[in-house]
Amino acid sequence: MPNTSADEQRINAIRFLSVDAVDKANSGHPGLPLGAAGMAYALWTRHLKFNPKDPGWFDRDRFVLSAGHGSAMLYSLLYLTGYDLGLDQLEAFRQLGSRTPGHPEFGHTPGVEATTGPLGQGFANAVGMAAAEAHLAAVYNSGDHPIVDHFTYCLCGDGDLMEGISQEAASLAGHLKLGKLIVLYDDNRVSLAGPTDITFSDDHVARFDAVGWHTQFVDIGHGNDADAIDEAISIAKKVTDRPSFIAVRTHIGYGSPEQDSFKAHGEPLGAANTAKTKERLGWPLEPAFYVPDDVLAFYREVGAKGAAAEDAWKSAFAAWKNDNADLAAQFERIADKRLPADLPWPAFDEKTGTVATRDAGGATMNAVAAALPELVGGSADLDPSTKTYLKGQGDFQPGSYAGRNVHFGVREHAMGAIANGMAYHGGLLPFTATFFNFADYMKPAVRLAALAKIHALFIFTHDSVFLGEDGPTHQPVEQLAMLRAMPNLTVIRPADAIETREAWKLMVAPHDGPYALVLTRQKVPFLGERSVPIEKGAYVLADAAGTPDLILIATGSEVALALDAKKLLDAKGVATRVVSMPCMSAFAAQPQAYRDQILPPAVTARISVEAAATLGWYRWVGDRGIAYGIDHFGTSAPAGDIAKEYGFTADAIASLATSTFAFATT
Amino acid sequence: MPNTSADEQRINAIRFLSVDAVDKANSGHPGLPLGAAGMAYALWTRHLKFNPKDPGWFDRDRFVLSAGHGSAMLYSLLYLTGYDLGLDQLEAFRQLGSRTPGHPEFGHTPGVEATTGPLGQGFANAVGMAAAEAHLAAVYNSGDHPIVDHFTYCLCGDGDLMEGISQEAASLAGHLKLGKLIVLYDDNRVSLAGPTDITFSDDHVARFDAVGWHTQFVDIGHGNDADAIDEAISIAKKVTDRPSFIAVRTHIGYGSPEQDSFKAHGEPLGAANTAKTKERLGWPLEPAFYVPDDVLAFYREVGAKGAAAEDAWKSAFAAWKNDNADLAAQFERIADKRLPADLPWPAFDEKTGTVATRDAGGATMNAVAAALPELVGGSADLDPSTKTYLKGQGDFQPGSYAGRNVHFGVREHAMGAIANGMAYHGGLLPFTATFFNFADYMKPAVRLAALAKIHALFIFTHDSVFLGEDGPTHQPVEQLAMLRAMPNLTVIRPADAIETREAWKLMVAPHDGPYALVLTRQKVPFLGERSVPIEKGAYVLADAAGTPDLILIATGSEVALALDAKKLLDAKGVATRVVSMPCMSAFAAQPQAYRDQILPPAVTARISVEAAATLGWYRWVGDRGIAYGIDHFGTSAPAGDIAKEYGFTADAIASLATSTFAFATT
Repeated sequence: MPNTSADEQRINAIRFLSVDAVDKANSGHPGLPLGAAGMAYALWTRHLKFNPKDPGWFDRDRFVLSAGHGSAMLYSLLYLTGYDLGLDQLEAFRQLGSRTPGHPEFGHTPGVEATTGPLGQGFANAVGMAAAEAHLAAVYNSGDHPIVDHFTYCLCGDGDLMEGISQEAASLAGHLKLGKLIVLYDDNRVSLAGPTDITFSDDHVARFDAVGWHTQFVDIGHGNDADAIDEAISIAKKVTDRPSFIAVRTHIGYGSPEQDSFKAHGEPLGAANTAKTKERLGWPLEPAFYVPDDVLAFYREVGAKGAAAEDAWKSAFAAWKNDNADLAAQFERIADKRLPADLPWPAFDEKTGTVATRDAGGATMNAVAAALPELVGGSADLDPSTKTYLKGQGDFQPGSYAGRNVHFGVREHAMGAIANGMAYHGGLLPFTATFFNFADYMKPAVRLAALAKIHALFIFTHDSVFLGEDGPTHQPVEQLAMLRAMPNLTVIRPADAIETREAWKLMVAPHDGPYALVLTRQKVPFLGERSVPIEKGAYVLADAAGTPDLILIATGSEVALALDAKKLLDAKGVATRVVSMPCMSAFAAQPQAYRDQILPPAVTARISVEAAATLGWYRWVGDRGIAYGIDHFGTSAPAGDIAKEYGFTADAIASLATSTFAFATT
Repeated sequence: MPNTSADEQRINAIRFLSVDAVDKANSGHPGLPLGAAGMAYALWTRHLKFNPKDPGWFDRDRFVLSAGHGSAMLYSLLYLTGYDLGLDQLEAFRQLGSRTPGHPEFGHTPGVEATTGPLGQGFANAVGMAAAEAHLAAVYNSGDHPIVDHFTYCLCGDGDLMEGISQEAASLAGHLKLGKLIVLYDDNRVSLAGPTDITFSDDHVARFDAVGWHTQFVDIGHGNDADAIDEAISIAKKVTDRPSFIAVRTHIGYGSPEQDSFKAHGEPLGAANTAKTKERLGWPLEPAFYVPDDVLAFYREVGAKGAAAEDAWKSAFAAWKNDNADLAAQFERIADKRLPADLPWPAFDEKTGTVATRDAGGATMNAVAAALPELVGGSADLDPSTKTYLKGQGDFQPGSYAGRNVHFGVREHAMGAIANGMAYHGGLLPFTATFFNFADYMKPAVRLAALAKIHALFIFTHDSVFLGEDGPTHQPVEQLAMLRAMPNLTVIRPADAIETREAWKLMVAPHDGPYALVLTRQKVPFLGERSVPIEKGAYVLADAAGTPDLILIATGSEVALALDAKKLLDAKGVATRVVSMPCMSAFAAQPQAYRDQILPPAVTARISVEAAATLGWYRWVGDRGIAYGIDHFGTSAPAGDIAKEYGFTADAIASLATSTFAFATT
């Protein structure tokens, strides 16, 4: 057994807690912890600002393990440094009910800053966190009191850098000159299925140079040279005008018989190979989950230093608060995720006239923007179309980080994940915007927002074939079903300006989960001043005089169409109720009594009207009803021509109703 | 009015056909055609190998307009060079029923090689086409007769290069050293919402250098220097060991009052500005859609040269065929998309035992692989897990392009679009593979495959929460609904080895549209030798003795569970039918009579059992039925524990049935 230095001992503690956790679970990834423990050690013990006793300390450094399959390493660090995560949790790695799931989950484990695993997401989250820090620092810091002043670190692997989202995020971070973002790249030349040289020949450093980053390459040899990493991080911290990329040449599965092979990536070592690895690295074979007392004491002392650092920050904060009472009140409000008492919501009335819901949305956002400084975001190069620009609130750019309009570029995927990073960070209520069809590009990021239950607002405009001439490549059809099927995501498709405003009221209120707001390109009529119970998901917008013969259920721009059809049907003696259903999931969550009130079981003649795939609608129209939608791709033509071609006219709907159901028409 | 050279005249013809088409439609993007017409002109008239009279000529050069919003330019080129696209079609730009939709659509317009518009897709399609060419050339060419020997050109814009998919595809193309791929970058420094300097500061040339491309930068000044482009393309063609990137500094909206502004990007110029632009560039103000006779004659002559080139190729082909009869027969078969007469499908029987459908899928693919040389593809760094490696068929790598296993790397999005490119190219039946959860990353590419109705096979494994310990970040829940909502996509989730094999039989048969095959990680029982009408989508797998009291409808791994529940229920006297529904869309497409045979309307006690979001299931279980699924995210734990926790056990389902429905149980 070799002699090991103190550094090696401490690094080995991370390694073997991880290896033992994976072995015990008989599932997981030992390769990353074995190879990357050295850099994690250097970062966590010599640089990272954190207080295990207060994982929510606002000014802590953020650490994102983008290579989330290395979760065992993160849990080992959390245990060692004294977070509320006991050894029992490491022993319960990947088991039902544990706080140590297969990949890190935000809100589930103290100290986990982001839900990662789907590759590339954490990298972009980190960009979002660094952007949030830059913005908040610009808004809140005064010269003497940098109350927001922390680094964001990200540890990523080959998979992260192969995913396009990392390029999108890196390109934007470089443009934005986010100097307090430091990415450590676990450059081990091996991915799950083989060596990277079968598929990945990038010059990584040159690639990051090309997008405006400060870059370093460090070869830490056998993986224990903490000093080399330490120095590289120190250099990176001093570079404040660019984000920093540190490629660290490591050895996957370091010390194990499968070192440097893809076989070390994602399979437990197993008893025999674990023993060999421990032997090689000078670690006692028994017991499992062994940590020498002095090693544990060392890590706990590192953790304790964080408490002192937070105390110092609290003193500085108090002094700053003393000098900046109003700003401090605002800061405490946004940090606590509280809304201001009154928000100046816009009044919409008959004078509003026909207006696209994207315009109503833009007007609503802008009405409350000044009162909601936490509302920060932008579009993927489409704000003239999505109407989401916050007028007078400035652009978030190098040199003007206090600006609230972020120009994400044509980078929908990173936009979503960067917004997630802002939400993870705290202090911001991020929003994004693009065409609804390009929700597809953002889907993985929206999913993680939903899984992590973070409060992020995803705005989508141009929400149907009625966007017209751009054609089927841009016309969403199946996206409503795609998003409605997602747990924890609240999808709202308002029918007019009033519903749009009410949606926004719901969306800005504190909530554990993201929203998708789905808006029209085309103008829609104003449907009357009224109270809209948007939180109930559906309501009777226009009723029959007595018991309805027929219920038309519609969303968004098709609600006005249903109202027009009702007029035709009423004239024929078909007593028609029109239900507006802006939020299907909210309606599904209502008590049966409310649902039966809106959709009385006795009224089986029902038609849903939505210019989209019908998947999901049979639940509401029932066995005798008709789900009227568009189960095919669209076409390039003016919107009016498309409406006629696809039967989205009041006449067509009225005819469908009378030809399908046996009404006593007049 | 300035004097214009012959080149300028010809370039202006492209410009103003495009501008006039956009003006007449009052919709579209004049900016790209005005700026990029010069490079399109140089490419199409001096390099591109094509025959307007035979758009399907196998050995034509491929040209992909990744910046699909510049469609008017492409249509102008197609008209000018003599494709079957008359001036009337340019005049009907973006109108209902025209062949000139807002963005180019494959299969809709002769000469359009790929459906583009969603940015970045065309770039990756082009990589797929170049890969297809490299593979087919390696397999079919003999020394004297390069019957597959063409370039693939792509014209892309800033938006394409901001999208991460372009990085993924560029990185892989660089690794693969696809020397006959040439990308022209319309480097105009302006995107839809503003100048690129608000969001995009990449050193583009350095970025492509970093991923192994040959790079050039050309400033063509006022946009008419065809010679400069010509020369750059000539240089790029000579570089055969790397793909080529040519950044061409252009001026968006060249000649218009809004030149170099984002306002020139996506709005019609309108009569006044069109007149000014024509005046500046020396073009007659009237009539619209004007093309001087000599200009048209020139372009038509260019087109006619293509016919001669094809004739020469045909002669070469005949000579090659003479020398290589068997190979030629195979080539003609794959070029015509015909299947071999008999394929050696594997036999599965009771001895097969419990086997994961991913393993059954792998076995099936491998059984027919030798007989189906057109089956080419791979996974996103997961083939040890997806089981999709074609044994003995070699790796597609530089120097071994005849290999059929493509290592896509952790690049799901580009993988999808590259597979699409292979399918567009012809001669290949491409497949991809990854975990089902990461269908999210591929969604935009899968959608374009569906829209373009191309035959590509998307394989997804690890298809439910039962993948276990990797946890909710990797456990699909809503992906089945997401894909089922998509028009033209056939989603199949087989229950056992037999259904998996039958799915493959369907999938390899000629078809206008993609498939998604959804397979388990975990083992599932063999459900018996039987005939499976997979093309009908659903069938009675196990029936009640008489009229059923209850119908259990299940898919994939839940079918075996339903069978177990049936045993419990039968024992209680509940006559239970089990319906396996591997393909919901196919079932929905059956005549009512067949559907009523499988799901008799009189039997209203129905439960669907699928470990996924229930959206879409109420259609089949009806008003009195229960959609039993998982409408929340999963959890990290062994699969068996998850099954118990979520009630996916035979006991739980049997109890649900008896507690819900009033059966006369024994």
